[in-house]
Amino acid sequence: MKNIKTMTMEWTGNSLILIDQRYLPIEEKYVECQNYLDVANSIKDMVVRGAPAIGATAAFGFVLGAKEFSYLSDKNLFSNKLEEVKNSLSKTRPTAVNLFWALNRMDKILKDNLPTKEINDLVTILEEEALKIAYEDIEINKQIGKNGEALLNDGDTVLTHCNAGALATVDYGTALGVIRAAVENGKDIQVYADETRPYLQGARLTVWELVKSGIKTTLITDNMAGWVMKQGKINAVIVGADRIARNGDVANKIGTYSVAVLAKRHGIPFYVAAPLSTIDIETKNGEGIPIEERNHNEVRFCHKTRLVTDDVNIYNPAFDVTPNELVTAIITEKMVIRPPYEINIVKLF
Amino acid sequence: MKNIKTMTMEWTGNSLILIDQRYLPIEEKYVECQNYLDVANSIKDMVVRGAPAIGATAAFGFVLGAKEFSYLSDKNLFSNKLEEVKNSLSKTRPTAVNLFWALNRMDKILKDNLPTKEINDLVTILEEEALKIAYEDIEINKQIGKNGEALLNDGDTVLTHCNAGALATVDYGTALGVIRAAVENGKDIQVYADETRPYLQGARLTVWELVKSGIKTTLITDNMAGWVMKQGKINAVIVGADRIARNGDVANKIGTYSVAVLAKRHGIPFYVAAPLSTIDIETKNGEGIPIEERNHNEVRFCHKTRLVTDDVNIYNPAFDVTPNELVTAIITEKMVIRPPYEINIVKLF
Repeated sequence: MKNIKTMTMEWTGNSLILIDQRYLPIEEKYVECQNYLDVANSIKDMVVRGAPAIGATAAFGFVLGAKEFSYLSDKNLFSNKLEEVKNSLSKTRPTAVNLFWALNRMDKILKDNLPTKEINDLVTILEEEALKIAYEDIEINKQIGKNGEALLNDGDTVLTHCNAGALATVDYGTALGVIRAAVENGKDIQVYADETRPYLQGARLTVWELVKSGIKTTLITDNMAGWVMKQGKINAVIVGADRIARNGDVANKIGTYSVAVLAKRHGIPFYVAAPLSTIDIETKNGEGIPIEERNHNEVRFCHKTRLVTDDVNIYNPAFDVTPNELVTAIITEKMVIRPPYEINIVKLF
Repeated sequence: MKNIKTMTMEWTGNSLILIDQRYLPIEEKYVECQNYLDVANSIKDMVVRGAPAIGATAAFGFVLGAKEFSYLSDKNLFSNKLEEVKNSLSKTRPTAVNLFWALNRMDKILKDNLPTKEINDLVTILEEEALKIAYEDIEINKQIGKNGEALLNDGDTVLTHCNAGALATVDYGTALGVIRAAVENGKDIQVYADETRPYLQGARLTVWELVKSGIKTTLITDNMAGWVMKQGKINAVIVGADRIARNGDVANKIGTYSVAVLAKRHGIPFYVAAPLSTIDIETKNGEGIPIEERNHNEVRFCHKTRLVTDDVNIYNPAFDVTPNELVTAIITEKMVIRPPYEINIVKLF
């Protein structure tokens, strides 16, 4: 399979080059991951973020681990080393289920082929699988876009939170993919983007990639979302997801829950766009989803500027859970899932 | 009357020294206003903010204008000049009604005494009136605190938005005054403070003054408010107000409306603490309240760090309107006003 190169990531065959999302849009820097620990650190430190992007990145990390230990002559030793690689990559961030999904998929390919293949062949097979995950992600997002854009009308204004765009995936995006697909289909769509403190993915990433794509975008602070809805400016909300439980509860970037409550209050449809790999069929409901609490400095500072002194107490949950009753529909590559989610999600698995 | 000196402002007799709230808490700078134009600029540029603080500041600006034109020998010329002073001060910010209330009060004292007093005496009378406004503000806030603290239970956690504290008033604060009064009354009260983008009054001012006062405070970003409510962490919301219409609709810092919707969803009481001077009995409902839209750079930058490039569209309303149906009670110095506000507010005027 051909090496892949998108806005978010490039697989060179020997390394994974990631656009450093911590510095966008003011600085366009890149991080080249030479080994699996570089990849683990890049996920942990949010050089790359967004559930599908994390999944594909971890898959390439697994490949870099395989390449690193391909000098071993014993297949069991090789397999044990890749178990360590998998553990190391899986400990980077707890909430996005795509990370575990991608690592399990890589692990399964390894285990399936271990009895019959030599180490060099295994490395090739793993590399092919990671590329497949990456290429599939783009196709899946385009299909999500196609399924979702039918929900938007010409002239609609969509509010989105955080970044579920090309930068959160291998390419094209989930929530922003739906908007792209609507625009590609000739619809006039405008976007309001919540800046999404503390990490500012909305201001820094969503606005950057939408403006690059020529889509009319207005940046607001998170606390303006209710007021723009009240003024009748918003026709639909579309967000991504980090993990969707079997009952349709949605873990996504902190603030998503508030946006969903506000959308409900104003009778605005609240859509979640995500690949099936984001659905965690093993988790019964939102209470079972681990919510990462991140470093307090993310709140203490706004980007690079210190706001408060070190002695101030801070609470910094990176995600929240939106209960299924607030979700109008979940847009996947297979279909648009409607309530009752308890029934309609299980059907797909 | 004795010259006044608080955390927020100092009247020296010839100038008004304001703590520069744009740089707190990292830098403690002061701006000395030597004349009424300095005062107008300090209000416009948000060296000082918060409806009651703006009112008192404008009153001292009026006095500085009177001192500046006290060299005139003709009382009508003097009065005309003060009309210009009043206009200039009243054009600084449109939403907080306390600005107009204070200027009208100063103007009335001038007009009442103009026929019988000489210019030097008028200046003295105006200075006394401004000091009276300032001293009264502190007493009013303490009374608001006393009336409001009865609504809080020992062990409560209160969420507040923006800064309605000592720094938003001459001293003590309105919303934070209620919290102070509860703590002074021996109640164990904790606070969650929304950081309040774009200007970060919550992070920079509320947290600073509460920590200084030894009140347990946790800083969150605005988009976390819903999630902390969902987790059962919040017992009450208390905010200030910039203008309250006759029907109880409340204009306050952008984001207040979202917090009120979220409080309603979670069955949490939503209290507004404000002096009677914040009630604009002439304005029928929230639709009549002018909402200031401020410079887009407030959103484009986070404090001092640039987030997005200059070509990005931004919407930056500084306030929003919370409809009366979401307001559990309005805490004033006279009484705690309950619905129906259409009836109960008018009774007080």
